[in-house]
Amino acid sequence: MRWIVCVLVEGVALAGMVASMAPASGQADGEAAPIFVTEIPPGYRDWRLISVAHEEGDLNDLRAILGNDVAIKAYREGRLPFPDGTIIARLAWSYDPSEENNTVFGRPQSFVAGPPKNGVQFMVKDAKKYAATGGWGFAHFNDGKPADEAVLNTCFPCHQAIKDRDLVFTRYAP
Amino acid sequence: MRWIVCVLVEGVALAGMVASMAPASGQADGEAAPIFVTEIPPGYRDWRLISVAHEEGDLNDLRAILGNDVAIKAYREGRLPFPDGTIIARLAWSYDPSEENNTVFGRPQSFVAGPPKNGVQFMVKDAKKYAATGGWGFAHFNDGKPADEAVLNTCFPCHQAIKDRDLVFTRYAP
Repeated sequence: MRWIVCVLVEGVALAGMVASMAPASGQADGEAAPIFVTEIPPGYRDWRLISVAHEEGDLNDLRAILGNDVAIKAYREGRLPFPDGTIIARLAWSYDPSEENNTVFGRPQSFVAGPPKNGVQFMVKDAKKYAATGGWGFAHFNDGKPADEAVLNTCFPCHQAIKDRDLVFTRYAP
Repeated sequence: MRWIVCVLVEGVALAGMVASMAPASGQADGEAAPIFVTEIPPGYRDWRLISVAHEEGDLNDLRAILGNDVAIKAYREGRLPFPDGTIIARLAWSYDPSEENNTVFGRPQSFVAGPPKNGVQFMVKDAKKYAATGGWGFAHFNDGKPADEAVLNTCFPCHQAIKDRDLVFTRYAP
């Protein structure tokens, strides 16, 4: 999964898309307002690995996508849609060249995870509770504090693009 | 940890270093011959994440470093040297641009893990058993088959450079 656009693209390339597609809370068009995840799932740093990625540009990070037991089981079984209880976490760190590694290598080629960067994000599956956003609750935490609603309203519109994998960008890395 | 040089640099930048430093099996200079790890530690894909990295150049991969429970505990406690029983795994996948993500992004910036690449590697700590190589047994598996001794002999010489962290390149990513 890649929530890459949820925060840093805000107001840039996808602003129009977000503005036109994001369900706004308090809206009066008959759709349910999205409900967001406001607490960090405990123990997520101990979850198993789904995959890894690198984002260039403003994000410029190395990231790991972890899943709770429900998520890992569903991935490995190829189960779609993901069952209720699935939680997927996106951690990210600064994309840092490693002088130490490069020295041993004898050439510049190694990039490692530096300090945490771009917050921590989650997708929580509950088909009923999060019906307004495809069955997924979205969350973004900076230094443990949840991002505000304007930020979270940018998640669902982009994840909607991945209809054939239940809105989840990340594939399992074997 | 980065065994980046163990295989693909063989015969290139570090060839001289390897030739001069690697303990060769059957050597007659009084040092013990290195002992290598020949079986894949079971269940390693379920281990917890230590960190992630990207290697450019010939390796051109995205990688994850996982640790067994002993490894994760030692990392989190800052324990050095790593205790016997520590096992650290290096998985790697093809470094693939994601057209799918980039389309949603509206720009090319997303790189994800493709198929497995560059084998799977392990460091196993047993101070007595692997005394000839700093207390670490080294392993590299391609498609489940252990690499030959010539390859494994290239691991220790480079890991030796990281004396202050018990020969382990990778730092824990919080």
